[in-house]
Amino acid sequence: MSLYGVIPFAHHLLEKAIARGDMVVDATVGNGHDTAFLANRVGASGCVLGFDIQAKAVQNTRNRLEMEQLDEHVVLMEDSHTFIEEIFKSKGYAAPRAAIFNLGYLPGSNKTVTTNSDSTITAITQLLELMPSQGLIVLVIYHGHEEGKKERDALLSFTSALDQEKVLVARYEFSNRKNHPPFLLALEKQ
Amino acid sequence: MSLYGVIPFAHHLLEKAIARGDMVVDATVGNGHDTAFLANRVGASGCVLGFDIQAKAVQNTRNRLEMEQLDEHVVLMEDSHTFIEEIFKSKGYAAPRAAIFNLGYLPGSNKTVTTNSDSTITAITQLLELMPSQGLIVLVIYHGHEEGKKERDALLSFTSALDQEKVLVARYEFSNRKNHPPFLLALEKQ
Repeated sequence: MSLYGVIPFAHHLLEKAIARGDMVVDATVGNGHDTAFLANRVGASGCVLGFDIQAKAVQNTRNRLEMEQLDEHVVLMEDSHTFIEEIFKSKGYAAPRAAIFNLGYLPGSNKTVTTNSDSTITAITQLLELMPSQGLIVLVIYHGHEEGKKERDALLSFTSALDQEKVLVARYEFSNRKNHPPFLLALEKQ
Repeated sequence: MSLYGVIPFAHHLLEKAIARGDMVVDATVGNGHDTAFLANRVGASGCVLGFDIQAKAVQNTRNRLEMEQLDEHVVLMEDSHTFIEEIFKSKGYAAPRAAIFNLGYLPGSNKTVTTNSDSTITAITQLLELMPSQGLIVLVIYHGHEEGKKERDALLSFTSALDQEKVLVARYEFSNRKNHPPFLLALEKQ
């Protein structure tokens, strides 16, 4: 296939943005798929800071990272990504070079706990503040569920109003797929 | 920059889709920018079939290709891309592996001659028929001018109605840029 799927394209953009040794953020670790990808990419000299509000997600991710021997350069927080700024400042971490948000609910869970636009927008705003120029934030947006539709609309409204001199916003989606396929927003700090 | 501009992303997707020796189509040669890119990519064993209804465009492209010593494996037609099917069949060419349409008016011209949705859709339909599975069509859509808006709407309506089992349609655009920036549609035959 010449066309990227949404997740492969998210990873492709992150690969272009991240070098070994970088500090990066997985704002929604879920089952650790993106966390493992990022940990491999930044290598032993880099660091992934991962967030999830669900204990099960943090545990699943920890197990996966241990199995893949990637746990040593990942810091997992069972907490909201709205604490990103506080943690970066209190720990004195290097500025994050990139971040990913995989929005919606935890795959395999009961779907009652979902991300929401308020905390997502708070975390994006903090990251844009912390990041250097050319810092990249990738959002994978699932909007098949009710809360997802609201989050999608709020994020589209928020991102399309960002000043293009400060942040460039790209959107990648499949426009003839049925059943609300996920799509991608990528924000690059100018 | 980690984010692709629209034209670099069009070329990136074409690079992934095309191998040396392939037959490809530049449906709107303009000043030869994409034609030269494609000719470099397919190499001396491949062939680019290029169309433009404007004599000036064909001449500009011919000059550019000669200067870059790429003219030997490009066939230029001063004709509408609605004749794609007829030409492929009458000449017995190998099936096209990829095609690009750079829509709108000839850069540097008086803007009175533009592409239009009827002939664009006719040509896309013919290409999808001729192409093998995984054949790729990339459309770069300029919609800052009046005819461009109509062409955009007609193409969005046509492509979003394509059966996802037969053709996958991806869209890539900058969602916070002012002044109607061009955007990309990419169609992959399934």
